[in-house]
Amino acid sequence: MGAALLLLAASGAVATEDGKCSAEPPADGSKADCGCSGDFKGEWYGEFFPGIPKIKYEGPKSTNPLAFRYYNAEEVISGKTMKDWLRFSVAFWHTFRGDGGDPFGSATKRAFRAMHANFEFMDKLGVDLWCFHDRDIAPEGDSLEESNRNLDQVVEVALELQKGTRIRPLWGTAQLFKHPRYMHGAATSPNATVFAYAAAQVKKAMDVTQLLGGQNYVFWGGREGYQSLLNTDMALELDNLARFMRLASEYKKQVGWDATLLLEPKPQEPTKHQYDWDVATTVSFLRKYGLEKEFKINVECNHATLSGHSCEHELETARINGVLGNIDANTGDPQTGWDTDQFLVDPREATLIMLAVIRNGGLGTGGFNFDAKLRRESTALVDLFYGHISGMDALARGLRNAAALLDAGALTKLREERYASWGAKGGIGPKIIAGKVGFDDLEKFALSHPDPADDVGSGSQELAEILLDMHL
Amino acid sequence: MGAALLLLAASGAVATEDGKCSAEPPADGSKADCGCSGDFKGEWYGEFFPGIPKIKYEGPKSTNPLAFRYYNAEEVISGKTMKDWLRFSVAFWHTFRGDGGDPFGSATKRAFRAMHANFEFMDKLGVDLWCFHDRDIAPEGDSLEESNRNLDQVVEVALELQKGTRIRPLWGTAQLFKHPRYMHGAATSPNATVFAYAAAQVKKAMDVTQLLGGQNYVFWGGREGYQSLLNTDMALELDNLARFMRLASEYKKQVGWDATLLLEPKPQEPTKHQYDWDVATTVSFLRKYGLEKEFKINVECNHATLSGHSCEHELETARINGVLGNIDANTGDPQTGWDTDQFLVDPREATLIMLAVIRNGGLGTGGFNFDAKLRRESTALVDLFYGHISGMDALARGLRNAAALLDAGALTKLREERYASWGAKGGIGPKIIAGKVGFDDLEKFALSHPDPADDVGSGSQELAEILLDMHL
Amino acid sequence: MGAALLLLAASGAVATEDGKCSAEPPADGSKADCGCSGDFKGEWYGEFFPGIPKIKYEGPKSTNPLAFRYYNAEEVISGKTMKDWLRFSVAFWHTFRGDGGDPFGSATKRAFRAMHANFEFMDKLGVDLWCFHDRDIAPEGDSLEESNRNLDQVVEVALELQKGTRIRPLWGTAQLFKHPRYMHGAATSPNATVFAYAAAQVKKAMDVTQLLGGQNYVFWGGREGYQSLLNTDMALELDNLARFMRLASEYKKQVGWDATLLLEPKPQEPTKHQYDWDVATTVSFLRKYGLEKEFKINVECNHATLSGHSCEHELETARINGVLGNIDANTGDPQTGWDTDQFLVDPREATLIMLAVIRNGGLGTGGFNFDAKLRRESTALVDLFYGHISGMDALARGLRNAAALLDAGALTKLREERYASWGAKGGIGPKIIAGKVGFDDLEKFALSHPDPADDVGSGSQELAEILLDMHL
Amino acid sequence: MGAALLLLAASGAVATEDGKCSAEPPADGSKADCGCSGDFKGEWYGEFFPGIPKIKYEGPKSTNPLAFRYYNAEEVISGKTMKDWLRFSVAFWHTFRGDGGDPFGSATKRAFRAMHANFEFMDKLGVDLWCFHDRDIAPEGDSLEESNRNLDQVVEVALELQKGTRIRPLWGTAQLFKHPRYMHGAATSPNATVFAYAAAQVKKAMDVTQLLGGQNYVFWGGREGYQSLLNTDMALELDNLARFMRLASEYKKQVGWDATLLLEPKPQEPTKHQYDWDVATTVSFLRKYGLEKEFKINVECNHATLSGHSCEHELETARINGVLGNIDANTGDPQTGWDTDQFLVDPREATLIMLAVIRNGGLGTGGFNFDAKLRRESTALVDLFYGHISGMDALARGLRNAAALLDAGALTKLREERYASWGAKGGIGPKIIAGKVGFDDLEKFALSHPDPADDVGSGSQELAEILLDMHL
Repeated sequence: MGAALLLLAASGAVATEDGKCSAEPPADGSKADCGCSGDFKGEWYGEFFPGIPKIKYEGPKSTNPLAFRYYNAEEVISGKTMKDWLRFSVAFWHTFRGDGGDPFGSATKRAFRAMHANFEFMDKLGVDLWCFHDRDIAPEGDSLEESNRNLDQVVEVALELQKGTRIRPLWGTAQLFKHPRYMHGAATSPNATVFAYAAAQVKKAMDVTQLLGGQNYVFWGGREGYQSLLNTDMALELDNLARFMRLASEYKKQVGWDATLLLEPKPQEPTKHQYDWDVATTVSFLRKYGLEKEFKINVECNHATLSGHSCEHELETARINGVLGNIDANTGDPQTGWDTDQFLVDPREATLIMLAVIRNGGLGTGGFNFDAKLRRESTALVDLFYGHISGMDALARGLRNAAALLDAGALTKLREERYASWGAKGGIGPKIIAGKVGFDDLEKFALSHPDPADDVGSGSQELAEILLDMHL
Repeated sequence: MGAALLLLAASGAVATEDGKCSAEPPADGSKADCGCSGDFKGEWYGEFFPGIPKIKYEGPKSTNPLAFRYYNAEEVISGKTMKDWLRFSVAFWHTFRGDGGDPFGSATKRAFRAMHANFEFMDKLGVDLWCFHDRDIAPEGDSLEESNRNLDQVVEVALELQKGTRIRPLWGTAQLFKHPRYMHGAATSPNATVFAYAAAQVKKAMDVTQLLGGQNYVFWGGREGYQSLLNTDMALELDNLARFMRLASEYKKQVGWDATLLLEPKPQEPTKHQYDWDVATTVSFLRKYGLEKEFKINVECNHATLSGHSCEHELETARINGVLGNIDANTGDPQTGWDTDQFLVDPREATLIMLAVIRNGGLGTGGFNFDAKLRRESTALVDLFYGHISGMDALARGLRNAAALLDAGALTKLREERYASWGAKGGIGPKIIAGKVGFDDLEKFALSHPDPADDVGSGSQELAEILLDMHL
Repeated sequence: MGAALLLLAASGAVATEDGKCSAEPPADGSKADCGCSGDFKGEWYGEFFPGIPKIKYEGPKSTNPLAFRYYNAEEVISGKTMKDWLRFSVAFWHTFRGDGGDPFGSATKRAFRAMHANFEFMDKLGVDLWCFHDRDIAPEGDSLEESNRNLDQVVEVALELQKGTRIRPLWGTAQLFKHPRYMHGAATSPNATVFAYAAAQVKKAMDVTQLLGGQNYVFWGGREGYQSLLNTDMALELDNLARFMRLASEYKKQVGWDATLLLEPKPQEPTKHQYDWDVATTVSFLRKYGLEKEFKINVECNHATLSGHSCEHELETARINGVLGNIDANTGDPQTGWDTDQFLVDPREATLIMLAVIRNGGLGTGGFNFDAKLRRESTALVDLFYGHISGMDALARGLRNAAALLDAGALTKLREERYASWGAKGGIGPKIIAGKVGFDDLEKFALSHPDPADDVGSGSQELAEILLDMHL
Repeated sequence: MGAALLLLAASGAVATEDGKCSAEPPADGSKADCGCSGDFKGEWYGEFFPGIPKIKYEGPKSTNPLAFRYYNAEEVISGKTMKDWLRFSVAFWHTFRGDGGDPFGSATKRAFRAMHANFEFMDKLGVDLWCFHDRDIAPEGDSLEESNRNLDQVVEVALELQKGTRIRPLWGTAQLFKHPRYMHGAATSPNATVFAYAAAQVKKAMDVTQLLGGQNYVFWGGREGYQSLLNTDMALELDNLARFMRLASEYKKQVGWDATLLLEPKPQEPTKHQYDWDVATTVSFLRKYGLEKEFKINVECNHATLSGHSCEHELETARINGVLGNIDANTGDPQTGWDTDQFLVDPREATLIMLAVIRNGGLGTGGFNFDAKLRRESTALVDLFYGHISGMDALARGLRNAAALLDAGALTKLREERYASWGAKGGIGPKIIAGKVGFDDLEKFALSHPDPADDVGSGSQELAEILLDMHL
């Protein structure tokens, strides 16, 4: 039984170790002033993570694994607090999803408990954004109406818990890949009724994300792809996917929600080919259907590497196309061919990611969502904290490194010098950029100038690596 | 010494085995009527492939490895001759490129010999299209002017050899990746003078392709990519790549050449990241810069698989975006991570390729270019024939199979039934396609119709495989 | 709901379409003579696959997808019937495993139903071998004792169903990878009690496989590997794995069971590194611990490709090491990095596999187990038949092709000529093989003989491909 | 023109910038005391790397890219100097190989110059080990005798240059993969005469490595593998490979050379399958032929990742099999499928490598050879220094990190506690290890002890990552 399930099984009757908070409600009916989740709708929730304190910044020399060594939320780096650069978010589904049967109560009550645990977890971690799939925070009912009702009840709990806090969703999304009705696709199903069901589900998920104060909404199409081209009409399916996205964008405007809509690329898994393969493919899709102003992209690092790219490549591709909107912060195993969704811990990788983010001026309404899960073998509750601390600290370290690298200037200078012939010093470069020359002119220029072979210079990649390494 | 080099070393003094054609010019100065390459500009060329006859169609039961078992050029399949469907082309560079020092004569004379061998080879194989890089048919000189002169001389030979035949280039291209001046890129070089040199070289290559009667021109950017993002300004490089392509397209119109311009995607190798990664990335590039009407795409199967896609996926992606223009017919080893450029021999793969081609109504001005090379260990002259025969026969078999599969109709029917709800029988599908419904309407529809879960049907992939297999 | 689950949910009350067999027991209490599974222990089982007849051989021109086009069980190929060459086996777990809750009855009754369905399926398919995991045919109980009892009951059903038939298990195995106790490994668990539990479970699984008349027993170590070297003592874990295998081998002898023990390699998934990575790694393990005489290897084709090898490479590696014992007949998607367990349908791949099998003189007590599952989207009961027919027919076609290729002799001759210098014609080759020369002698030989560079000949790979293609 | 070629073209006439060493020999015929390479056999060599000083340790805060920030040769870490732990070696072939025509002199004279440059480079870098292929330090002649003479002459130069220094080869090897005679294999050639030539060449390479004081000899079989199984007799080829290795081992003993023989695994490239695929495969080969006491293994990190393993996995596999002998220190690009041979720069990867090395107690007679090359685009002479400095510093940093991690003890403790049940505290674990129990006993134990499911504990991988990160 993994940590997440342990948590839910146990959560109704956990006694705190420090005695400050009892698992039972106070005898006098008061709401205890103890950092507990407290009661709600007649239910009492004890502390879910007893014995685990709020995680504090202790600096790089700390040997306490339950402390931050790099993430110091209010410290200012390159003009913004670390908190504002990083905008960390807890992914509800990896952390608190309770699948399977539960002898202790109804699915909805279990969902209430999970939501309480989520807020306690965010509080202890010092994170005030969270992400969710509709069907993970509330159970699927026997009908769409019942599913909507279940969702409304859990959202009411979440709204109550958000009250008086800065906590809001980073984004919400609809789970359109587990239910058998979505087996062949949701927006790309061969069955038009499934398209309609998916639309209804997304509408509701957008509604509740707006209600909770979320600033973004994400589309990851787990079944929007194909298993075999033999039985697939790819042209129709892509047209339908575009129709769906256009309707979603129109609905957002109709309800006056000023949110960012995001597509999340992934190349494969569960399908052989996912339509939003990588950033370039997704941008191509948006441009083909005239949607490039309506959507941004949520880059997940493990998806990047599965598609054959480094994470920084995907970030840079999104950045120079003006669509970098959010990052699902995780990493894959470099030797495995599936989505392992591990916490990103490598300082070098984190630094390269933060370089792209700083160049993008931050992520706007987006942030870093920990779409990362504990290893199946990590079954202690405290492992949830270790995982998130390792991920937050890695990115915080990356931010510090990247800022220092840019401040030092040597790498930027190396790059500028490489491209000097396209710049202010005149010559053929600026004329090409200005569109003033054609092939005839360029041929004349080439015939009358020496071969540039001896003038192209070294790429200096090894030097660039050293300059980077100086800040790792 | 591989077959191609053997050929060039030997070619000046090869005696034919059947006595019909001597390696020495006829004593009376006449041009022998013997199928030999004959004399040209004072040089005499004997037969390059003595003992190898014209390759004939002998049918599937033939055990002669120097015969076609499936390719019957004039046989009509689905309304066109096999020749017209397939439009096979010999790739000069894999077959006749003679690198390295040669004690027997100047580089230009060697180039003449290679061109003669090329024409004898096409004649014996029954192929009347060929593809070339400028620097492979003629040697690079010490200056651009000299390189142009070298090219002119070899093109004169090729023109002479084309005379009275149906032989023409399928396409030409400029070799912009071997010379050190292109080390950091050609159109995407950090050095603007390199851009000008590349433009001048492409202009010339376009000129000679037009002169030779070629109908297409290909861009494969072997150095248009990056090795490291640390020292690369990807945004500027991509802008420059687009500038280059726009100039090429304008030049084509300026000189009144009614040819198809083609981009050829490849994900990696030699660079870590090639800008024309795959079809979707290349289409995205074309759309971003408004070039999608000016270029089509040359899909190479081995490049497809290196980018994580099946070849049929890349073909279908090009087809539904209206840009499928040519196929570089080869295959890779499914277990290796680099471009092996092998001859495509698998009947199943060939059938899936031809399915896409038939659905595209053929390849227009394009064709199938054998961008495939012998294994390094295949060093006999006859291996050049074995390789091409295996590739031509595989695609011919694929054409027969694909046509039979479509004629049988069962697979098409399976597909149509899957998507019936989007078609003529009315209902919500056609309304969605017609743009008549929004999220509100779809929600109403979903709430008032049964869950489609029990109605989505089987994907029937295993049945589809059997239907395919019936025609392999 | 996939086909397998559909089957189990429905199986208690299925009416036959042809009226021959009712879902209810005959009123007179007799056992109907109708091809139904009949009653057992007071339960009545109707026909599980109504409307699906016994699958017959109809020859290559048949357009009936529910017929064999290549598999003709009693036809003799190269001296043996196809049935004897191929020894097909149904994998119980992919076909009849009913996970999850079931409102219709207890887990054990469900297991009885599944076993009846299994036998009807084998009968209709004409297969008389089956493979099973202990925990898939019978449910895990609350204790080891209860699990053993559950297993005994289901085995009693299977024994009853086997009676009077030729049906026997090809092999059995213990499921040591799903239960949380095996999370960190079974034989390689850091917890010694887990090792003991695994031993007890394997002992029981061996007992029942022997009881059922199985001739082989397989070990696939789904958790025998690591997720991270940081927390793993690989040396101890491998020593323990060897201890476990030695005990299993000793137990087999102790109980007088003349069966073949098989290890099944897989490189990854679920763990990052599985200890039985590929055939070579597994052979290395066996040799290190002196177990190479006690175990053979079960090669799974999809595992082969995941480890970077072709399936024929793994088969040949097993063959030349004398340990080729069984084949799990499936294939992977060449573009995906995880185990897709698809039915192998490519004629070329099947032919290469059968070449290795013929060279091995067959598989001895082993056979071809269909460790292949329907795509998740294939939800019709008939899809189970399509999948197995496609796989059986592909291998039967491969057998025919391979036999014809060997009979034709050209490929064998090509190979023999390549290696002629090591054979009977004398010279340095046989002396090297005989161990009669050292480096000094070889140097003398080399200094006194011409450089062999011009004598190494062509590898003729393209010709070899044509020779193969003539029989596809 | 890359840095290495630039170097050789220029080397005859380089003026130093600091005036200390002239490019021309002193007028008085004396050997200048200037750190120049000086004269030899009537040739004068100026400074090859003018303006580049000896590289010094300046500590982590240095911003000088031509300084070490972590490598402090004489500093003691965990009981040994950094120099002794790391035993760095320059790979002659990546750094000083001068392929292609050279207008300035004969191939042999060019080889003399390259050797002088090599020694100046080692001196400036502070490295006193080097590695070489026979055919890279001296040109192939027209006959074996001539090749041997060429080699003798260059070795004489190297001996002279070694005099009075601590510089010795780390290892030598024979280049058995470029010459056409080795096209189909060297020890595994289908042609027995090729085997003899390869033996003669290895004998000579072993002789000169011994003469130069080398302590190791490496076998990397660039052509020992296959391109296609269709034309390959894998069983015979592997037998022959073993025969070759046995002869080499016997020759070593015969000449009384106390050196370590090493096999270097690589999975692919240039062939589709290399016989020494990875460490496990190579160990299997050694064990099959009884050679496991005669050879150790040279692990190359880029080869490790190409075979689907992390470098630390390969090191650990070699370590626990007692055959870890040397490391070719490089890294690959995680997204490319071929051998990029880059300098290893990632601190995390370096730390994991050094963990294995420390656990192995160092590398014995082996060391770290920089089998890494500059990017093709890195064309400045100084890039050779940047590359090596980046690699040396990364491993030095890794050594410091790994030593600190082990000293801190927390990770070791975590691991020990996981495996406690196998240790001194008694119970079933030690009995299993002692071989005192069989399956019967273990079943009894399991039936009488509680299910260990709740007792297996967390794998704590995320905590382990934090403990590692504390020392990066």
